[in-house]
Amino acid sequence: MNEWQLNLNEYSAEEIALNGNRFMLGNGYMGVRGTLEEHGKDELAGVMLNGVYDQAPGQWREPVNAPNPLFSVVEGAGKIISHEQVLDIRFGHVSRKTVYENAIVEADRFVSMADVHLICLRYSASGDLPIHTGIDTDVWDINGPHFQCLEQNETEVVVKTNELGITVAVCTAIEWLNERSFHKFTSIYTSLDCTDPITAARESCVRALAAGYAELSEAHDARWNEIWNRCDVRIEGDDDAQFALRYSLYQLQLAAPRHSDRVSIPARALSGQVYKGAVFWDTEMFMTPVFTLTDPAVARNLIMYRYHTLGGAREKALEYGFRGAFYAWEGQEHGNDACTHFNVTDVFTNRPMRTYFRDKQIHISADIVYAIWKYYEQTNDFSIFTDGAAEVVVECARFFYSYAFFKKDKERFELLDVTGPDEYHERVNNNAYTNRMVKFTLDTAIRVLDLLEEQLPADFQSLETRTGFMAELNAWKEMASNLWIPAPDPQTGLIEQFDGYEKLEDCSLKEIKGRVLDPNEYFGGGNGLATTTKILKQADVVLMLNLFQSDYDVETIRANWEYYEPRTEHGSSLSACAYAMVAARIGNPDWAYDYFMKTATVDLTGKSKQYVGTLYIGGTHPAANGGAWLSAVLGFAGLHVDENGIHLNPNLPSRWTGMSFGIEWRGERYQVEINGRETKVTPGKEICNV
Amino acid sequence: MNEWQLNLNEYSAEEIALNGNRFMLGNGYMGVRGTLEEHGKDELAGVMLNGVYDQAPGQWREPVNAPNPLFSVVEGAGKIISHEQVLDIRFGHVSRKTVYENAIVEADRFVSMADVHLICLRYSASGDLPIHTGIDTDVWDINGPHFQCLEQNETEVVVKTNELGITVAVCTAIEWLNERSFHKFTSIYTSLDCTDPITAARESCVRALAAGYAELSEAHDARWNEIWNRCDVRIEGDDDAQFALRYSLYQLQLAAPRHSDRVSIPARALSGQVYKGAVFWDTEMFMTPVFTLTDPAVARNLIMYRYHTLGGAREKALEYGFRGAFYAWEGQEHGNDACTHFNVTDVFTNRPMRTYFRDKQIHISADIVYAIWKYYEQTNDFSIFTDGAAEVVVECARFFYSYAFFKKDKERFELLDVTGPDEYHERVNNNAYTNRMVKFTLDTAIRVLDLLEEQLPADFQSLETRTGFMAELNAWKEMASNLWIPAPDPQTGLIEQFDGYEKLEDCSLKEIKGRVLDPNEYFGGGNGLATTTKILKQADVVLMLNLFQSDYDVETIRANWEYYEPRTEHGSSLSACAYAMVAARIGNPDWAYDYFMKTATVDLTGKSKQYVGTLYIGGTHPAANGGAWLSAVLGFAGLHVDENGIHLNPNLPSRWTGMSFGIEWRGERYQVEINGRETKVTPGKEICNV
Repeated sequence: MNEWQLNLNEYSAEEIALNGNRFMLGNGYMGVRGTLEEHGKDELAGVMLNGVYDQAPGQWREPVNAPNPLFSVVEGAGKIISHEQVLDIRFGHVSRKTVYENAIVEADRFVSMADVHLICLRYSASGDLPIHTGIDTDVWDINGPHFQCLEQNETEVVVKTNELGITVAVCTAIEWLNERSFHKFTSIYTSLDCTDPITAARESCVRALAAGYAELSEAHDARWNEIWNRCDVRIEGDDDAQFALRYSLYQLQLAAPRHSDRVSIPARALSGQVYKGAVFWDTEMFMTPVFTLTDPAVARNLIMYRYHTLGGAREKALEYGFRGAFYAWEGQEHGNDACTHFNVTDVFTNRPMRTYFRDKQIHISADIVYAIWKYYEQTNDFSIFTDGAAEVVVECARFFYSYAFFKKDKERFELLDVTGPDEYHERVNNNAYTNRMVKFTLDTAIRVLDLLEEQLPADFQSLETRTGFMAELNAWKEMASNLWIPAPDPQTGLIEQFDGYEKLEDCSLKEIKGRVLDPNEYFGGGNGLATTTKILKQADVVLMLNLFQSDYDVETIRANWEYYEPRTEHGSSLSACAYAMVAARIGNPDWAYDYFMKTATVDLTGKSKQYVGTLYIGGTHPAANGGAWLSAVLGFAGLHVDENGIHLNPNLPSRWTGMSFGIEWRGERYQVEINGRETKVTPGKEICNV
Repeated sequence: MNEWQLNLNEYSAEEIALNGNRFMLGNGYMGVRGTLEEHGKDELAGVMLNGVYDQAPGQWREPVNAPNPLFSVVEGAGKIISHEQVLDIRFGHVSRKTVYENAIVEADRFVSMADVHLICLRYSASGDLPIHTGIDTDVWDINGPHFQCLEQNETEVVVKTNELGITVAVCTAIEWLNERSFHKFTSIYTSLDCTDPITAARESCVRALAAGYAELSEAHDARWNEIWNRCDVRIEGDDDAQFALRYSLYQLQLAAPRHSDRVSIPARALSGQVYKGAVFWDTEMFMTPVFTLTDPAVARNLIMYRYHTLGGAREKALEYGFRGAFYAWEGQEHGNDACTHFNVTDVFTNRPMRTYFRDKQIHISADIVYAIWKYYEQTNDFSIFTDGAAEVVVECARFFYSYAFFKKDKERFELLDVTGPDEYHERVNNNAYTNRMVKFTLDTAIRVLDLLEEQLPADFQSLETRTGFMAELNAWKEMASNLWIPAPDPQTGLIEQFDGYEKLEDCSLKEIKGRVLDPNEYFGGGNGLATTTKILKQADVVLMLNLFQSDYDVETIRANWEYYEPRTEHGSSLSACAYAMVAARIGNPDWAYDYFMKTATVDLTGKSKQYVGTLYIGGTHPAANGGAWLSAVLGFAGLHVDENGIHLNPNLPSRWTGMSFGIEWRGERYQVEINGRETKVTPGKEICNV
């Protein structure tokens, strides 16, 4: 079982925050940080509830950390002599054994995949020092406090959030096995789940106590087994890569909402309040595609979250004088945008810096449409459209039409004043990624409306009644045909990232880093070092080429990869995997391998940016986690799935002797096996039996 | 004569730079700073040649200071005991009397208005210490050195500029009146003036020596008399205002090119190399109008400078992917743009800051067209169009058409991504000033072409052959009719300065100043304090309202004045006079008075911004000088001149009992007299007899 375990063999005070991320547990409903039972807010202990947000006056709105029911400590245990901690990613358990001066503590815990409200802990201590266990209400907050206690005793805490008055009930039941050992069952319900969360939590605890630790663990383990059956990838000949990829999938699954289509996966998953617990384009571009191909029900939930937040997207469009749906750059529960106009603090003046993420990164609406169409194309689940996605698509097309300008003397539509994925260059014109994605949106709207009219004329009519798209459809068609898509230069094959990019200073990454005056200074924004140079934060043109590879010949893709990659800072965890996918595709799998490993190990090594300006951005990286799978499966295995079926064009790294994985296409499971020169696709077989 | 004199009664080492500006002499060909004869580069002595530019490698291109022929010193004179210095603005003389420990020095000098190549100095010293006089080649440069000496002796220096190899010959002839007293005649010619500047300068000196100081002074004085006959304004009841306004006119006239239509008036006149000796929109908006109404031949030269630099404007448009003429934000001799993309240095990081003056301040081309049309309207000189201005107008219209976008769902043209006069808000959409001025440009192009076709069909055809405007004329008409002009809000009458201005932080000037961390920090640019607030650098909407007052009712003008003025930092010397003109027009002359005085005294008090970021911007302010006249004549006197004639609507400040001035309209001179309640316009009378 070693290959499924992350082991820690000593206690490191410096790495408490990182180990909190590394030893995460979760189930989409909540995330429990991998701190120790005796830890509190100083050690960044956290039980983050997905979709429960609160805003303290004048501060950023962020998810709520529930009172911590795991809190347990041996009084007078003394200093740590030795410490072992194990995360089992196969079944989602964390166990620890710690030798203190005056006691030995052992514990095991899991956050149930079978019942998302449930946390189970087994705890024991040697010796005769008193053991305290309770519910710690003094929680870690970045921008708190977020709640007031309505009721509090040793086994129950009920709190109410300050902004929206959401009730959060944390109930526990303890089964003492002997004086030194207990099982603690926790159930958490909120008033977003049901009308009487207190009773629900209490009853859940009673049931848990009756079932017992072993039975609950078994049910939980069985669900993890199902998950791995769907998503596992086996890599032959490279244990490091094997573990890193599985670990990435583990982290991604912790945050996947299986219980609800009203929440999604935040940019730092459920590892904390970083990035305001908000949902970014990361989800649609780097996570949803993984689920669409492995576990479409999760992908459907992620898409439906966008439908349920369409109201917020409509409001945001209006706020900026547009029509249609302009999705939140940082989405919270109602589609309200948590992103501010001042999202970074200048390290030199300590002043808030105007950034153009919220109002100019319009590609977010297109990214959502892209995920929707791919979901439909690969699952054939047309009901997604009648359940809401058609309306999303229509409103996004409408937004882009209202955003675009027509250039009369060039007879083309252009998209001006946008920020592309490369956030170091804000407010640019005709960003290649954005323009291409917007064209995709318009094309998709036209296709979806055609399909709907043909297949479900009543739904077509009802959508028309709700949205009045007919009056605009011809305009969208005109724009789809005449929107300028930055084209490859006939000589070099290069696509200019945006108008004027070619004229920027062509300095090397090393040069730009040599100019840094403060280690946390932001490269973008008003005066950022990268803004006047060709240095980009992350894949932009190359990401576009990856998504629309069939539009371009491989030489063009290669030329752009070779040009843009050395100019990329990879200042986002999304960057490396985009380059890796393309590198594999253009026949450079060993080049891709380093990027793949960088992506797949980001939450293991903790080697990611921890600060932007003065802002802490640590936590887990679900987009990189998804990106690791995408790099392996779409990159190395060369999987391409469309309406016509499954295509494979493997380009394995030289140290890999084989790989295998399962996917789902249009309701059927398939297993792909790549061994040496042979590539085999077999229907139905499960690849990860317990 | 006291009312025409600026007196200095003591020597101040701290004010050397300011007094160099205050005691300026000049004649449009050159400017001679008001330092003392014994001063050199450390005291910022300077003989700046208009239109002679040079670029030292890697530095900003700037005008050349010639070797200083005035240099004269008494060896061993010792410390200064007392010092008197007088500038006579009536005739453009500077005299000084300085008592040193060991000598008394007296001198008088003028820079001839009758022969622009000539500088005359009378110098005498008491006692028997040796007097040295020569030509100082070790000149003050901001971004030098600019030349190498080809030839150098006590009476002649010939230098060659480094970049373009321009020969500058400085020849002197000395007439010793006795051992302690001499006249020194200097003649400066460059290879831009003639093929043999050395001979020309020598011969000029010979002639000067023959004519003698008194005769040369008389010819010079007579020219100043003519100048004052044209431009003087008499103010009754307010000696301070009277002197300040005359002083402003004096400074403006020093830089006015009467000898050539290949140069214009730089933003710091001829007072030094500040702002690269470049010509800004200041000239067209705040100086040319003064000359158009008082001395149209000068206005014509200023306009023809723009025609002669059309090539540079065409190149600049192409550089940014546009057609037509995009004039230099900082024009030098060939219309090349001296403005860089990094025009300010960040005080916090000492890094160059990307500014959007050069590439986004498109209104410069419209400002030029505005000056051209007003010149034609007020002088009836149609030859300006056939001599080149029609081509300028056509190419500016073409530029704006190529810059504009059409918004299909609003059925209007818009101007996006521009910087208006308020440079604190860069890259805005639909800046009210810019949009209105661009409409004026298109309307003017259409009018001029109509007139040309009607009056001079051959010229019309020749212009068509050169520029091919016919293919675009209908497009320009369509744009002129459908260009969005930000309209007054029906409730408040307010015109939004640009899209989204209303949403900016509405903080007071005091608040924003309270946030300042460095006294020289720039309020604009990437992260400037004003950029995210409503605080503006200078009149923008109000400037537009001033130019197009007949389009708006007085209540709208008043509402905008009252709204924008408290939000204006007046960070430009152009600002106060724009507000003053409008304040007078809306019936608040006493409110306007303070702005008028601020404008009119800027070069007397030296109370102007000396630094932007780390950049020295001191010098004289010809736009404010012109603005003082505009405030008095267009503001207080309420002069409005158009094709129908002269209109007056006086609103004098309460302390003014009367004012009178002369103007020229369509080739005829008129005198305006305002006394108490009576306003009289009399043809022909000269108002400033010697």
